[in-house]
Amino acid sequence: RRHFYGYTGLTLAKWSITIMIGILVGIVAYVIESSQEVIISTKKQWTEDAINQGLHLPLVFFIYASFGISLVLFSSCLVLFWAPAAAGGGVTLVMAYLNGNDIPDFFQLRTLITKCLGTICTISSGLPIGQEGPMVHIGAAIASSLTWMHGRFPTKKRQGSSSSHSSRLCCDRINQLSNKAFPFDFHNDKDRREFISAGTAAGLAAAFGAPIGGVLFSLEEASSFWSRKVMWRSLLCTSCATMVLSWLNKRDFSLSLPGSLSFHGLRPEFSLDDLPLFVVTSGAAGLLGACLNTAHGWLSQLRPSSRHRLLRIIEACSITFIAVGAIFSLPHFFGHCLEIQKEQEDEYWFRYTCPGADSITGVGYYNDLATLFFSVPHQSIQRLLALGSTVDSYFTVQSLCIHWMSFLGLFILAYGIATPGGIFMPSIMVGASFGAFLGRIFQIWLPSANVQPGLHALVGATAMLGGVFRSSISLVVIMVEGTGGIDFILPVILAIVISNWVAHHIHHAGAYEADLERLGEVCFLPSEPPHKLIAITAGDIMAPGVICFNEIVSVAEVVKVLRETQHNGFPVIRRTESDGCGQLVGLILRHQILLLLEQRALMEVDSQLLNRHLAPRISSRQRVTKEQQFYEHAMRVYHHSHYPHRRYLSSRPEALDELDLDEILQEAAPSVANGTGANGNNDQHTEEANNPAKSNSARKTVLALDLRPYMNRAPLTVRGECSAQRVFIIFRTLGLRHLCVTDSSNRVIGMITRKDIGKAQQQLEQSEGKFVLERQE
Amino acid sequence: RRHFYGYTGLTLAKWSITIMIGILVGIVAYVIESSQEVIISTKKQWTEDAINQGLHLPLVFFIYASFGISLVLFSSCLVLFWAPAAAGGGVTLVMAYLNGNDIPDFFQLRTLITKCLGTICTISSGLPIGQEGPMVHIGAAIASSLTWMHGRFPTKKRQGSSSSHSSRLCCDRINQLSNKAFPFDFHNDKDRREFISAGTAAGLAAAFGAPIGGVLFSLEEASSFWSRKVMWRSLLCTSCATMVLSWLNKRDFSLSLPGSLSFHGLRPEFSLDDLPLFVVTSGAAGLLGACLNTAHGWLSQLRPSSRHRLLRIIEACSITFIAVGAIFSLPHFFGHCLEIQKEQEDEYWFRYTCPGADSITGVGYYNDLATLFFSVPHQSIQRLLALGSTVDSYFTVQSLCIHWMSFLGLFILAYGIATPGGIFMPSIMVGASFGAFLGRIFQIWLPSANVQPGLHALVGATAMLGGVFRSSISLVVIMVEGTGGIDFILPVILAIVISNWVAHHIHHAGAYEADLERLGEVCFLPSEPPHKLIAITAGDIMAPGVICFNEIVSVAEVVKVLRETQHNGFPVIRRTESDGCGQLVGLILRHQILLLLEQRALMEVDSQLLNRHLAPRISSRQRVTKEQQFYEHAMRVYHHSHYPHRRYLSSRPEALDELDLDEILQEAAPSVANGTGANGNNDQHTEEANNPAKSNSARKTVLALDLRPYMNRAPLTVRGECSAQRVFIIFRTLGLRHLCVTDSSNRVIGMITRKDIGKAQQQLEQSEGKFVLERQE
Repeated sequence: RRHFYGYTGLTLAKWSITIMIGILVGIVAYVIESSQEVIISTKKQWTEDAINQGLHLPLVFFIYASFGISLVLFSSCLVLFWAPAAAGGGVTLVMAYLNGNDIPDFFQLRTLITKCLGTICTISSGLPIGQEGPMVHIGAAIASSLTWMHGRFPTKKRQGSSSSHSSRLCCDRINQLSNKAFPFDFHNDKDRREFISAGTAAGLAAAFGAPIGGVLFSLEEASSFWSRKVMWRSLLCTSCATMVLSWLNKRDFSLSLPGSLSFHGLRPEFSLDDLPLFVVTSGAAGLLGACLNTAHGWLSQLRPSSRHRLLRIIEACSITFIAVGAIFSLPHFFGHCLEIQKEQEDEYWFRYTCPGADSITGVGYYNDLATLFFSVPHQSIQRLLALGSTVDSYFTVQSLCIHWMSFLGLFILAYGIATPGGIFMPSIMVGASFGAFLGRIFQIWLPSANVQPGLHALVGATAMLGGVFRSSISLVVIMVEGTGGIDFILPVILAIVISNWVAHHIHHAGAYEADLERLGEVCFLPSEPPHKLIAITAGDIMAPGVICFNEIVSVAEVVKVLRETQHNGFPVIRRTESDGCGQLVGLILRHQILLLLEQRALMEVDSQLLNRHLAPRISSRQRVTKEQQFYEHAMRVYHHSHYPHRRYLSSRPEALDELDLDEILQEAAPSVANGTGANGNNDQHTEEANNPAKSNSARKTVLALDLRPYMNRAPLTVRGECSAQRVFIIFRTLGLRHLCVTDSSNRVIGMITRKDIGKAQQQLEQSEGKFVLERQE
Repeated sequence: RRHFYGYTGLTLAKWSITIMIGILVGIVAYVIESSQEVIISTKKQWTEDAINQGLHLPLVFFIYASFGISLVLFSSCLVLFWAPAAAGGGVTLVMAYLNGNDIPDFFQLRTLITKCLGTICTISSGLPIGQEGPMVHIGAAIASSLTWMHGRFPTKKRQGSSSSHSSRLCCDRINQLSNKAFPFDFHNDKDRREFISAGTAAGLAAAFGAPIGGVLFSLEEASSFWSRKVMWRSLLCTSCATMVLSWLNKRDFSLSLPGSLSFHGLRPEFSLDDLPLFVVTSGAAGLLGACLNTAHGWLSQLRPSSRHRLLRIIEACSITFIAVGAIFSLPHFFGHCLEIQKEQEDEYWFRYTCPGADSITGVGYYNDLATLFFSVPHQSIQRLLALGSTVDSYFTVQSLCIHWMSFLGLFILAYGIATPGGIFMPSIMVGASFGAFLGRIFQIWLPSANVQPGLHALVGATAMLGGVFRSSISLVVIMVEGTGGIDFILPVILAIVISNWVAHHIHHAGAYEADLERLGEVCFLPSEPPHKLIAITAGDIMAPGVICFNEIVSVAEVVKVLRETQHNGFPVIRRTESDGCGQLVGLILRHQILLLLEQRALMEVDSQLLNRHLAPRISSRQRVTKEQQFYEHAMRVYHHSHYPHRRYLSSRPEALDELDLDEILQEAAPSVANGTGANGNNDQHTEEANNPAKSNSARKTVLALDLRPYMNRAPLTVRGECSAQRVFIIFRTLGLRHLCVTDSSNRVIGMITRKDIGKAQQQLEQSEGKFVLERQE
């Protein structure tokens, strides 16, 4: 690498990628936001015009509904037939990825495209669904895509026979060129994770116009691993995203905060009398949030599984139909026609079926409930938060009551259908509407108390978020930045604390944690160890039958083990003459073995020597050949040089089949057969191996792998007596994938992986690794 | 513990302590803030009156200076003769404590009192010193004191002969009573650390009126260990502190933010043209901040050491004299007399030597430089930040220039004298003054650019902080909350990013990191491992000669080892017949052994058995006697039941002398002498011990300790080949104190402690633990 004034350029490259992520996220956020705004406004305008021109309301409804349904249809078809990973909010899976799980297809380009288009369509259709969750996913996906700049074309080795040799050569050349132009490789776990953390932060920041809130969200909720460096990078990324968004929105380079919910006019003071009212509002909204989580949990069990695509599509369309029906019928029957005051004459107010402007007085009317339902959601939230500031009669109490109840119901129905969509904005909407409703009631009951309903709307929205998500400081900052109301930070904090306290009595986990539990297939390790783990030890949770390799191991054995198991890490042991059971000397990973096999890094060893499991005494520090260096480098970039889910896929037998090992195995087979007897019984094989005197085999050479130069020579181990809670902490804080459990003589007695901890209670099947266990004891 | 509706009350107790910390911190912050404000305002008023009454300026100066010097004298005497730990800001040592160091006397009551009084005196004297650092220390100390609520009176065992038996009994009774009233014990490392983290956050939050900023400061700078629980508790603590402060300040229960630097009137917009100007201001202020760090580093080497108390006092007084001289002479010679505009007529503006109000026009005058120097610092900062908002002629360019330069010089001189005092507020003052100066110049040079000097002052202050502290997000939030200017968040972020980038070219570390390096005696492990560690292994940094104990060990040997070494952790090994060197089976801590000795938990063992190092085979899980349970509990509360720095003190030989072990040793001595020969040579002792056949000792019993029931049976180990960087990460993330290094047979080959990592490069002396090493190899 070129050095210039002490720099390798690596830092510069990282910062430029970070800035690029921020800019791209800002642009995407602008596109999503403005296109949905345009569509919703156009629909609203068209409805008003249509009603004005005397069209029958059912006809208007029919056209409106069919437009919405077709949007949702498009969105859910995209999701179901092209990119299933784009469904839902996506924050949960981003969290799971950043926690250390492999999520197939989650960051692919088609998922990204589907997420963008699907979010626009779903929100535009009128469903009570937000863009914040999808923006987080989009930010993460953009960040993930940009780590591919060291872009290797997939060499397609899996279909690869020798015929595609020329195309592989061509790809190699392109790769070489791109590597020269951009000589950095960020496609490893750590760098990817850091960029994705920053992208996540930028996504949320762009959705709310909250640069600090985005960083804190990524820190508190999304990211499992964090450092000052990541904090800096996230901060830069979020501020780029917010600045770009601000610039695109206003078309002048204004550095003022583009908080998407900003409102003005409330008085930032209240007396001691107001405190109980705020406590009531926060508590009630927090309760509502917790109930929402419970309802989502119940409904998710009733929904059709994603395999029944037709059912899923029908579900999405019918829910859209219900939603559109509600927003047409409710205002018609329950909405109030109010006079438009002079100071509120703007495009926001919606006439719907109210009488037109009075020809004599010139006073226009609007339907308050229809205005809330038909408008762009964040504009409605802004109006709710500003209640009580200048004009005091925007919405009637009845309309607010019907609005929050119906919106809540629709929201519970809609979240979980097979389209992209998040729960941030609807939660805020329900909370704000509910808070404004309570504030209005307080105002009527306690006319002397000087209640500001807008402040209660703010508290209600915050408390609702607190009840749903259970985050602390990030929600406070998001609300403060999003609304621009720093003067109200203490009520916001109050709302968060109270709602959280109330909510945890109803439903034990936040929306994301509940989602993770429901998902099942991913294993999420929270930052705090589960309390019950304190009673058991590492020995209780480990998988006891571990397949170990000797330092020099025959190809036949390796291939057999790789084919029969799905393990990714194998302890390497050394047997001395004094004790039959080997001591742990290292750990080798599946992909390292696969690479050694692929590169045919084999050696011929006396079969007797091999079978007696007596590794010749070679100090592994002595000779590091050029070949070994090459292999070691290749191992490090193995996942990169293939395709993103190589780790996930390489544990399947197909990964072995691609290596064309038949000829090697044929060569190796006779000697193995000779050594172990032709019955191929594995247990017998090992038994005989331990008693070389019994097998009267000829001294023949076998093909073997020397694992010593490549294995991790200092794997972390714990004793079987170690508390399971401590194991959890070690696993979580160090981000391990494999942890060997040893006894006091450093013999391997078990292995702990992420799944073992996740399923600590349930007994693991011991079928796979039986023979090593038997060998040892 | 009483259970009520599923609660043990533990959570409630923790939350109530948290709230109490917040309230106390808020009250203390109010007292410090208002008393210094009263003193400074009174001094200012007195000066004005004195000059008005025609006193000679030198006489006024003399009285003013002697008042200031006497304040500083009082403060520094308190520090030097009563509580040396109260000197300086204290943030650095809070960080060191939270990182895992023992800081003697740092959280004691007298330190707390000295810090409070000293801070008031020092700031009131006119020295450019801030209260924010001390507030952080005060918050931490208050939190630490409240964890003592399970208040045991120190039983004073160290002076304890048998005569004080009755007083001990009395103390025990009081302790029993207090334990019944408050049955929770938070005086362990983890709980204390969490409360201190929250107290730290509350201290900073109260100083700035920034609840979120305080939490983020604690997260980003002060605390090394963090969790969601700590975040919640800190948030509650900071909001209590801010609310109490706000209530005390305004005497109505206002939930508006009491940001101590809040200003109003700036327009929150600027065009693309302003960007280069902001970059210039941020860069220059960041540079200034980095230079400040460098200057502090240089000066700290020149200052007299704290042993020369008289020199330290003279230093403090003479610097105060210089400072008062500067703030008297500079305005007199360089200040400008400006007319007081109508909209700015308040008590802030200071006439000094300017002419009085014109009797005809009624126009008063003020000296702009004197106003900046004589006023309460945060009021001056508010005026600087509001520059350009409504009135545009508050301060002249020349005065601003002289102000920031002289203030910077005085600040460099003053920080480091033997009084409490922090660097937050002076940094903000210099930065704001410098930014305002630059903004004024830009305004003159580019009249068309519509420059707002106040915005440049904000950017300058932020960038200065960024250059000095190198924090990211916490500084942004502190500035935004403190100034209440959420509309300016993007310029603030810009300033932080640019100043940091500029500053790290000048001085590699922030003020706290530089302080830590200078302190030397504490070992701070940063969250990121030093890069150079990647090249060496655990074997290179470990202390190789480790003193190990057998599972059953003679009292004589234990006492000898404890007396001769200062180690705190001892590996416990088991020797089998097959190999001479023992395998690691556990780890026992010094205080555990001390407790066993104190309680006389001894057993008689056949001396031959003991000396042959053959531990009888007893499964340690089998029998847990009631006695063992008692000892185990006593070990857990050992540090608590004594006094706070027990761990620190228990490694001194005096700790052993208190145990009155003479009789036991006399009893034990003959048999030991018999076993090893009377020469007492240690090496020979072990040699003979390994060859029991040589020593023809009689079969006699010796007193011994059975360590097995009490030792940690699953200590974490690493292999000698493990990378030192990985060791660092393990040590740091898990918060270890001892880490055993083993070879592939699980034999102890070394030990890594905090200090070994800190001094990784330098070779450790091997004198202490020689004999065990020789025994093993």
